[in-house]
Amino acid sequence: MREKNIPPLLAQEEISKILNISSHKLEEAYWKGIIKNYQKHNLDAIQFRKGLGSVESGTMVINGETIQVIRGFPKIRRTLMLKPALKKHFLKEVAVEEKMNGYNVRITQIDNNIIAFTRGGYICPYTTRKAKEILDLEDFFQKYPEMVICGEMVGTLNPYVSHYYPEVGKLGFRIFDLREKQTNIPLPVKEKRDLLREYELEPVRLLGVFPVDEAPEKIIEIVRDLGANNREGVVMKDPMMQLEPLKYTSSQAQASELEYALGYPFDLAQAFLFSRIIREGFQAYEMAESTDELSKRALRMGESILYPMLETIKGVENGEVAAEDLVIEVENQNEAEEFIRHLRDLKVMATLVEIKDGKAVIRRIHQSTNDRVKNYLHGGLY
Amino acid sequence: MREKNIPPLLAQEEISKILNISSHKLEEAYWKGIIKNYQKHNLDAIQFRKGLGSVESGTMVINGETIQVIRGFPKIRRTLMLKPALKKHFLKEVAVEEKMNGYNVRITQIDNNIIAFTRGGYICPYTTRKAKEILDLEDFFQKYPEMVICGEMVGTLNPYVSHYYPEVGKLGFRIFDLREKQTNIPLPVKEKRDLLREYELEPVRLLGVFPVDEAPEKIIEIVRDLGANNREGVVMKDPMMQLEPLKYTSSQAQASELEYALGYPFDLAQAFLFSRIIREGFQAYEMAESTDELSKRALRMGESILYPMLETIKGVENGEVAAEDLVIEVENQNEAEEFIRHLRDLKVMATLVEIKDGKAVIRRIHQSTNDRVKNYLHGGLY
Repeated sequence: MREKNIPPLLAQEEISKILNISSHKLEEAYWKGIIKNYQKHNLDAIQFRKGLGSVESGTMVINGETIQVIRGFPKIRRTLMLKPALKKHFLKEVAVEEKMNGYNVRITQIDNNIIAFTRGGYICPYTTRKAKEILDLEDFFQKYPEMVICGEMVGTLNPYVSHYYPEVGKLGFRIFDLREKQTNIPLPVKEKRDLLREYELEPVRLLGVFPVDEAPEKIIEIVRDLGANNREGVVMKDPMMQLEPLKYTSSQAQASELEYALGYPFDLAQAFLFSRIIREGFQAYEMAESTDELSKRALRMGESILYPMLETIKGVENGEVAAEDLVIEVENQNEAEEFIRHLRDLKVMATLVEIKDGKAVIRRIHQSTNDRVKNYLHGGLY
Repeated sequence: MREKNIPPLLAQEEISKILNISSHKLEEAYWKGIIKNYQKHNLDAIQFRKGLGSVESGTMVINGETIQVIRGFPKIRRTLMLKPALKKHFLKEVAVEEKMNGYNVRITQIDNNIIAFTRGGYICPYTTRKAKEILDLEDFFQKYPEMVICGEMVGTLNPYVSHYYPEVGKLGFRIFDLREKQTNIPLPVKEKRDLLREYELEPVRLLGVFPVDEAPEKIIEIVRDLGANNREGVVMKDPMMQLEPLKYTSSQAQASELEYALGYPFDLAQAFLFSRIIREGFQAYEMAESTDELSKRALRMGESILYPMLETIKGVENGEVAAEDLVIEVENQNEAEEFIRHLRDLKVMATLVEIKDGKAVIRRIHQSTNDRVKNYLHGGLY
């Protein structure tokens, strides 16, 4: 049955040592699909598709001049109730940074090349190219070759999560963590910000450092304001970064995610609905809203569920395809096609619509939504 | 591994013949758990927990004076878009009956005993007792021993789906089908109603018989009215009952189901959310609502999701248990306990709270909601 052998890289004893996982377990994980071979963009690497022991999903082991491990970005857990969760979780102080609505990217240097990995550990050719354009990283990596820059790629010319930030516009990168390649140890909040300032690299906004007792009230105010400005939420951190960070998001963020997902109900809605709704329930409770505020929240939620569905049904009835158009900047057709190949590696169905004025329009098709909406419009039974 | 033998009843060749399923397949289905032994309420029977070939889930094969097959009530499929679905599905005319919000019961006579089966084929002791109290069935079954009366048990003293109907009050039974035991063949709509009138048995309301072309418009009006009166919806039938019936429900029915499910979010919500929301999307589209009507629908949806969650969180915070109290009429403690045992057979966790004035209060506990809400209120992470 097992015709393939395990990748030679995985068989090296050094890797078992670095990761602190026995060769036997690594091999087993490979056969289970937890670890995959990754031979793209001139790399010889292995990719962790899921977590294994203390090694995070998205971790990459790269066979370069030396063997390098880029650990996956750790999952940040969510609090539904700020007050009890902060009290239970943090010691003295909580540093509150803005959580931006984009996609998580790790940038690092491998054999003198700067490479950008997505959350899952894929090398995104567009992100890698843009990171080098937007950021001046040479000096930083010269001095700190063992560091990984973790941040959010945000803005409208963003193929994964397009969201408008007035201070960003088309595309920008905001850094939230500096971590050590192999150990994944992050710098404390202040050190990180000082170092970024020194290299003129832009961090996410620090919205305050609060004593644990005062933090929930402050954060509720902050999140209300962020929401009112159509911004996502916060990440709460131990200033020393010795405790796991937590995240919390605005009602508007929940609504806009529902809105997105319900536009493609038979592709995305089931995965999104339940958790967003639960968040709203606990937030409404903790914020102890007035009847009027509650009614506004209920309406926002209902509209963000109903209206995008309606738009999609109308569109399909008018012969449109349920799809989203991603726009990225490219210099030539090759760059667009390279990105589409990358999307296909991620099992995303996408086609090139056009290239115009240096921008490629790439259509991501939501096939189940298309097929099923069409079927119901033609009288298909549920 | 297979210590048990198959039930002797299942081994009888007659059963294979009656059901038109080979003995081998029946045996296989037994090992897979599709068919179960059912030895309760002095019956020797087998129960179809799932459908098998043309035999419906809920079918019971009973070893009485003769072998009797009570076929399961066929699943009624739903239309999301009335106009195209009716046109595609029906020939000339559509008979529209009210779909009531209660639970599906099949009543029949086995060896001179009148027995009531729930949808799944369980004998419900409460329903069986109440059916005999409410309905005068002796004459009917004297004449039609091979008939199964299919209807909805509705009203407030209803342990499964408590809903107030002004014309019913505490408990009533409304009949929608008369079917032949072994074949499941239903009487045509008119014959059924004539026969029920003759025996003074109450049918569900017939809301009209319409030409297929006019039906969608009429039904939309009917469903709007039903919804405005907090009633569930309609079942659309071929007057000759030779085609599969279809169902369609009001926005208010969707909202009230969401409301119920979101009161126990970690027990019921995931199963309810998606399908109810999809129904709302297509209904809003087909009803071509004004901005104002849409906004009302969105608010209704949002409120039916948000408010019950909020109530449950508040309740748990105040030390209450996330549970629903079912009230049934009993003559003694034994009847209450018998019903609780029946619920436990259905894997429903329930306890007797009290018996007072001939009514038993039975508490159904939603344990996951309790545990998880409590955990989040104490700062547990999501």
